[in-house]
Amino acid sequence: MTDQSMQSALDLAASALFITSPNPRVGCVLVAADGQVIGQGHTQRAGGPHAEIMALRDAAARGHSTVGATAYVTLEPCAHHGRTGPCCDALAAAGVAKVVGAITDPNPLVAGNGFGRLRAAGVEVVVCAPQDGGEASRELNIGFFSRMVRRQPWVRVKAAMSLDGATALPDGRSQWITGEAARADGHFWRARACAILTGVGTVLADDPALDVRYVDTPRQPRLVVLDSQLRTPPQARIFAAEREVLIYTRSEDSARQAALEAAGATIVRLPGPVSTVPNARIDLAALMQDLGQREVNELHVEAGGILNGALLQAGLVDECLFYLAPKLVGQGLPAFAGMALQQLDQAPDLDIRSIEPFGADFRVLARVQGHAAF
Amino acid sequence: MTDQSMQSALDLAASALFITSPNPRVGCVLVAADGQVIGQGHTQRAGGPHAEIMALRDAAARGHSTVGATAYVTLEPCAHHGRTGPCCDALAAAGVAKVVGAITDPNPLVAGNGFGRLRAAGVEVVVCAPQDGGEASRELNIGFFSRMVRRQPWVRVKAAMSLDGATALPDGRSQWITGEAARADGHFWRARACAILTGVGTVLADDPALDVRYVDTPRQPRLVVLDSQLRTPPQARIFAAEREVLIYTRSEDSARQAALEAAGATIVRLPGPVSTVPNARIDLAALMQDLGQREVNELHVEAGGILNGALLQAGLVDECLFYLAPKLVGQGLPAFAGMALQQLDQAPDLDIRSIEPFGADFRVLARVQGHAAF
Repeated sequence: MTDQSMQSALDLAASALFITSPNPRVGCVLVAADGQVIGQGHTQRAGGPHAEIMALRDAAARGHSTVGATAYVTLEPCAHHGRTGPCCDALAAAGVAKVVGAITDPNPLVAGNGFGRLRAAGVEVVVCAPQDGGEASRELNIGFFSRMVRRQPWVRVKAAMSLDGATALPDGRSQWITGEAARADGHFWRARACAILTGVGTVLADDPALDVRYVDTPRQPRLVVLDSQLRTPPQARIFAAEREVLIYTRSEDSARQAALEAAGATIVRLPGPVSTVPNARIDLAALMQDLGQREVNELHVEAGGILNGALLQAGLVDECLFYLAPKLVGQGLPAFAGMALQQLDQAPDLDIRSIEPFGADFRVLARVQGHAAF
Repeated sequence: MTDQSMQSALDLAASALFITSPNPRVGCVLVAADGQVIGQGHTQRAGGPHAEIMALRDAAARGHSTVGATAYVTLEPCAHHGRTGPCCDALAAAGVAKVVGAITDPNPLVAGNGFGRLRAAGVEVVVCAPQDGGEASRELNIGFFSRMVRRQPWVRVKAAMSLDGATALPDGRSQWITGEAARADGHFWRARACAILTGVGTVLADDPALDVRYVDTPRQPRLVVLDSQLRTPPQARIFAAEREVLIYTRSEDSARQAALEAAGATIVRLPGPVSTVPNARIDLAALMQDLGQREVNELHVEAGGILNGALLQAGLVDECLFYLAPKLVGQGLPAFAGMALQQLDQAPDLDIRSIEPFGADFRVLARVQGHAAF
């Protein structure tokens, strides 16, 4: 069972869901020897203070001494000079007697060094069992853990479909299958992602904004467009929001490139497809590695069936975020197109994580089996 | 709130789920003036005693007088001589002082006459408000109410599909998308139906038994095959079970007919399709009326997408019983094929009634909006 102070720290971390990218969401609670909570905080925007520093500052602002206190942290305190100083040193310098950490930081620059340096400074260190906070902290930061360990983002495919599995009419029209509540929840998932991925087909067909509107967020996720031939129109609505737009292409057309750069895009060239994924026009594994290098933790995919299907065939889909509408469409476009299974037992198996109603629709959150085991 | 005695009567009715077809599932509880339950019963197999008679016999067997007792009945006692004598007369003759009925019988041969004759015999009659038992009784007998009011069965389409809506691979292979628990639950729904409907395409492709095996039942539902050209093989596995097999056709081929009759089939000729349902080779509305005349209350459809889609387009699908497997199949066959919607808002809307896990799969029970309002 998770300790109450650790649960408070996890709640603080969760409250930073839209904020910390590309850093992990971390919470910290400082408890005095008499059990009183004397300070708390969570990680700020990238470049800003980490959770531990915020909690120490909070204690100071409230006039509490942190000497002899216990710090509950949802992730191992950092030991490196990144955008900020090492948190382990700050905790030791503040006289903290004990650190309870939910889980070791998967960042190779930390990876035990934070706990080690605390111990070397005479601070008692306890690392929680997975069920006592470690698992919850990892879940909250599944994208960060993925990037640190797998060097690529956690890929979540969002799709809205009728109960009988149609995402659109055969001609591609899909607005709107699901209702307001489901769409608002979809924006929540957009907001927590580091980047949103779509294909140029969706941009050309629907001219979507693909930004966060239905929920408040201090930060728009980046937008990533797969566009092998640079067909994205420079006047597309995707350029309206304040955020980085990355267009991955194989085109060498410098005029189109210049026009898109003028519209605000960053053009990235990637190699062509690998033969095992017939419908991909770009090497999707190379795409994911590049996005990992660009510090994308959670990648939120809102694309057509062709791109979804190519990602699935490439083994790159980790999670499904499906909204099922109480409708029957019959013949329509599937969420994952172009898959040609020879046998039903080749179908990727999912672990259902939750099924919840959203207005008249319901949401199914499911993971591709084995993909979270890294 | 449903009275406790009425709830007991409803439970008794539910326990007769697989038994009473084509009669409604009815329960009866007799309560003495001092509040003691003195007798109870539910409707037996067709031709056997109704719930009221069973409860009176139960009271007699236990040595209780029924004079002055109150009878809780989940459906208006019958007033006509069908296969058995009128229950309202039996209750009055037994000295029952009061009858609490959950709902009026929709059977035009009863329809208030039962309550009326009880009142005429000096018995006090109370009819429940819908939420006090009437709605539950009607739900338990939705097929019987449909046949009495609409003159056609309540049509429930069962389909097993992947989470992304594929019922089969593109070549039609579908065994097995869902697991044992879902299949066993599917047999429960078969068992409560008066008849199972399929198409000759399914018979030819899969040679299914389409009988009840995973649950105990005293009675196999009838099997109905749509086979416009009489292509059903006389050696098909559908003929193995002890039950009536009805084959609806437009074929005049007397040799095939004789062979199928020798295998145990009853051949029924129906008119051709109506132009509004392009994929139907038989007039499906006429089919439903004929099934209604043959006393089919609940029709359980296990068919391919073409027949499902034709039924849906004909407006004849009342309920969906979907099992969704945690798998991604991508391109596959849909549950309802051949529908060509011009606009998404033409998609039939559903009311979700329940979503429940069955092993690794989950079941969605949903009704086509407005179809239960008869």
